[in-house]
Amino acid sequence: MKGIFITFEGPDGSGKTTQLKKIAQELQKLGHDVLVTREPGGTAISDKIRSIILDPVNEEMVDQAEVLLYAASRAQHVHELILPALKAGRIVLCDRFIDASVAYQSYGLGEDIEMVKHISKYASSGLQATRTYMMDVPVEVSLERLNQRAGATEFTQQLDRIEQKNVDYHSRVRAGFHQIAVDHPERVMMIDANRDVESIAADIWQDCKQLLEEHISV
Amino acid sequence: MKGIFITFEGPDGSGKTTQLKKIAQELQKLGHDVLVTREPGGTAISDKIRSIILDPVNEEMVDQAEVLLYAASRAQHVHELILPALKAGRIVLCDRFIDASVAYQSYGLGEDIEMVKHISKYASSGLQATRTYMMDVPVEVSLERLNQRAGATEFTQQLDRIEQKNVDYHSRVRAGFHQIAVDHPERVMMIDANRDVESIAADIWQDCKQLLEEHISV
Repeated sequence: MKGIFITFEGPDGSGKTTQLKKIAQELQKLGHDVLVTREPGGTAISDKIRSIILDPVNEEMVDQAEVLLYAASRAQHVHELILPALKAGRIVLCDRFIDASVAYQSYGLGEDIEMVKHISKYASSGLQATRTYMMDVPVEVSLERLNQRAGATEFTQQLDRIEQKNVDYHSRVRAGFHQIAVDHPERVMMIDANRDVESIAADIWQDCKQLLEEHISV
Repeated sequence: MKGIFITFEGPDGSGKTTQLKKIAQELQKLGHDVLVTREPGGTAISDKIRSIILDPVNEEMVDQAEVLLYAASRAQHVHELILPALKAGRIVLCDRFIDASVAYQSYGLGEDIEMVKHISKYASSGLQATRTYMMDVPVEVSLERLNQRAGATEFTQQLDRIEQKNVDYHSRVRAGFHQIAVDHPERVMMIDANRDVESIAADIWQDCKQLLEEHISV
């Protein structure tokens, strides 16, 4: 059995990481070998790149550098961690992937969409998710959650460089995620994430179980 | 007067950095406003990326990540430092640029040449050098110089991750530089760098003075 690659997308504060962890637990209960990972990051080299991308001190970073750093981090992540795990038959749950680059860098920053896709495809050697759970919340809700998170642990968790960008930017990013869902209905499941955690988890798990059955029957 | 962008290319140990400094001095003697910089690096963010690229501890780095990190470093360098300097009418002398990516990553590592050029062009917003001085030495000579350099200061200067690669790789890189010179005769001046420092400097300076005259007369 070849592995399955599932991605979780959506803005910071949309609850995607919480949902990813819940699905990982459900899969593990059923005895599946699950790899939980995230972008940017996931390997030692990718984490070093992540720290450059997100460090608020790097405020002078130009958009092209941001696009290329995300892609570099992805290239290492895909080839060192994700592809070997899939080859070994594991289920890989990844917090953000190419859709995030397209939403944040093309729709958000205005970088050419075909160029961002082209670079992402090169970085990932063409790997794409089998299923993407896209968590959708109004911009005010996700930003409010982020502010609460930062306020709750003022000295240990500050908003990172991307989170600090303005509301217009985050609105364009959300519109980008919507467009990606429209463009890829066979892969992307759009989730209303402005609900209680358990309802969301139930929806995702129902789809995920079906995905597993289809995958096993192939 | 718009600035002039001059790059110095060639393998480590070819003496390009020494020559660059000598040309910078000559230009400054004539009263020109010169910016000396290098790739990878040149800005705070680019230097952080440089340290990831060159650190021998990152031996598991995949080729795509290397290509994208060089490009990210270049994007920051071009937009934050080089383009503003050229706009201000300065003469920019840069130690390595796009030719190095093509030679090392396409000819050396085997990454697709059109993809490397495409990514480099995106990173640099199409900027290309007016003149490139390409320092050519036999592989054995450049590697011997590097070994001497490393041996002379054993505890302070080790060979970096790129320099440690094998002779076959460095031979492919040299062939790549030759091909670039053939492809771009209007821009690239090939220099026999297996000679004494002063003879090489005289050849470069003669061409550089002519370049300045042409530039001023435009």
